[in-house]
Amino acid sequence: MSSALTDLFPLPIVQAPMAGGVSVPQLAAAVSEAGGLGFLAAGYKTADGMYQEIKQLRGLTSRPFGVNLFMPQPEYAESGAVEVYAHQLAGEAAWYETELGDPDSGRDDGYDAKLAVLLDNPVPVVSFHFGVPGGDVLDSLRRAGTLTLVTATTAEEALAVERAGADAVIAQGVEAGGHQGTHRDLAENDGSGIGLLSLLAQVRETVRIPVVAAGGIMRGAQIAAVLAAGASAAQLGTAFVATHESGAPAPHRQALTNPLFTRTELTRAFSGRPARALVNRFLREHGPYAPAAYPEVHHLTSPLRKAAAKAGDAQGMALWAGQGHRMARELPAGELVRVLTAELTAARTALSGPAGAGGEGR
Amino acid sequence: MSSALTDLFPLPIVQAPMAGGVSVPQLAAAVSEAGGLGFLAAGYKTADGMYQEIKQLRGLTSRPFGVNLFMPQPEYAESGAVEVYAHQLAGEAAWYETELGDPDSGRDDGYDAKLAVLLDNPVPVVSFHFGVPGGDVLDSLRRAGTLTLVTATTAEEALAVERAGADAVIAQGVEAGGHQGTHRDLAENDGSGIGLLSLLAQVRETVRIPVVAAGGIMRGAQIAAVLAAGASAAQLGTAFVATHESGAPAPHRQALTNPLFTRTELTRAFSGRPARALVNRFLREHGPYAPAAYPEVHHLTSPLRKAAAKAGDAQGMALWAGQGHRMARELPAGELVRVLTAELTAARTALSGPAGAGGEGR
Repeated sequence: MSSALTDLFPLPIVQAPMAGGVSVPQLAAAVSEAGGLGFLAAGYKTADGMYQEIKQLRGLTSRPFGVNLFMPQPEYAESGAVEVYAHQLAGEAAWYETELGDPDSGRDDGYDAKLAVLLDNPVPVVSFHFGVPGGDVLDSLRRAGTLTLVTATTAEEALAVERAGADAVIAQGVEAGGHQGTHRDLAENDGSGIGLLSLLAQVRETVRIPVVAAGGIMRGAQIAAVLAAGASAAQLGTAFVATHESGAPAPHRQALTNPLFTRTELTRAFSGRPARALVNRFLREHGPYAPAAYPEVHHLTSPLRKAAAKAGDAQGMALWAGQGHRMARELPAGELVRVLTAELTAARTALSGPAGAGGEGR
Repeated sequence: MSSALTDLFPLPIVQAPMAGGVSVPQLAAAVSEAGGLGFLAAGYKTADGMYQEIKQLRGLTSRPFGVNLFMPQPEYAESGAVEVYAHQLAGEAAWYETELGDPDSGRDDGYDAKLAVLLDNPVPVVSFHFGVPGGDVLDSLRRAGTLTLVTATTAEEALAVERAGADAVIAQGVEAGGHQGTHRDLAENDGSGIGLLSLLAQVRETVRIPVVAAGGIMRGAQIAAVLAAGASAAQLGTAFVATHESGAPAPHRQALTNPLFTRTELTRAFSGRPARALVNRFLREHGPYAPAAYPEVHHLTSPLRKAAAKAGDAQGMALWAGQGHRMARELPAGELVRVLTAELTAARTALSGPAGAGGEGR
């Protein structure tokens, strides 16, 4: 579709923002230079840390890019639940010879300060995760020349995104690696995650703004699929974790295709909010008991995850991964964009062939 | 693709077999007459009941059709688990003024007798759910001139299907309504269900046989999407529940688009095996406690479900539904096939347009 968003970059490929050090400026630059939309992740960073990354990225490319913000979370964890979980994690702290983090290290992720930086130094695109920003925020970004995207995981959430005035909605399927962008984490909705192809059709019929499809996309034929289903572009995360420019630690990259890790699950074990990761020891042992308490649990487990990464122990890390993780390819990010584009073109051509059952001879 | 399977019927649309009285001969006939592949569901029927339906269908259409069989299940329920669940359901029996069913009413669903009928009176297509039949079974069906399909929910299961010698594999995403066709129900794999678009790419790269895509498909644009991702055809269930010819009871059809029912979940509450249904009272109250014990739990709850249906009480029925249920359209089944085909053609045309981001102006 021709929209302000998709006119920004020639290929329908968005590199998902991945907080925690994966979406480094080198990665975003490589993707944007190749014709996709590179993304920085402001999550877990200070406003100044974000600004330094934006400056660095601008030194690497003059192409459009995006910055992703986490929405501040209301306080609704059950009183005592975090303490109980901290007690459960005491053995992990002993094992990794570290302390648990302070669960009360701040709950707004520097949202206002980051917005102030982005209004003073506008970037082409800003996306939001974990909720819908106020209409005033979206308006002021628009006046600054910034396009806004907000993640939704249901048709109802997509409607809220459109009504708030965002330029596009990211429809995130349950296949997606890392944090689901669900607007409010309610434990009674566990098990209701919607597959991307079903979500996409529902969102497409609910809103008029452009839709970016996210979740489990690893191949160009899947990009062709989401375009056929009405998306304007595809957002890929896990596919870029394995690229040369990604900032993911080696045990994380290697785990994606390590036959030891056969499946993923949504878990609150690491952050207190449902996020998809490879099933490892930490997830298996603590996932069933982790409370809905974000970002308290994120702060609590942060030193554990750092210590595990330092020790090269994939069994104690948050191995964020989408359901297509085994299809990850170790390539330079720009090369991955080119391969995906060639696959997309091939799938488009095949689909437009004879209209019989299944089209082409695959 | 041109394969023995897709040469059988002109449109890439398969009507999913839905056991429990939904896939009546009138439905299958209407779909096959319209150019799709209609299906009968032999599950929960006697071999003779299946045979009578086949004869009835043959009187309604001379077009190809399929028959679906449930694989017999090994006995692996924990001893006592069924008794505990029966105890929990006692109040339901009192409420609906009926008795619980006998959990030991038979566990092979008349598999051998049904196979014997299908070998004596071959049908064009036979599909299998809940496991992989032996290579000898698939061979004898092939010699009888029958094409065989087997459901898979992971790439590993798809490989087992190909190795057994089936003609095609049905890749069933976690979005699908009714029973997941997982080969073995292991509780530790709960929460690992794979979204259709991710599964499809994994299966397509794992096997060489044709793939039929199933799960949450309600619109022609989604059929275009699965074809783009490498499927040869799409199988739709929930979309056909709402058609005029479906045998679904009125409370089931109405529930699909009733705003009271906002979401679906995989549950063992009704049958002891994970199946996707609208979240209603029965699922909410009993789902968390239902053991992995199929078909014992199916037999146990059967009288409850019948009594609830008779009373028109949707809160006590198994409201099987895929994640796209709210997009169901009440149409004659043949008309639905024609509408889906028109939507498919439109999506194909749009996708083959300008190669910029997103293709066409949707």
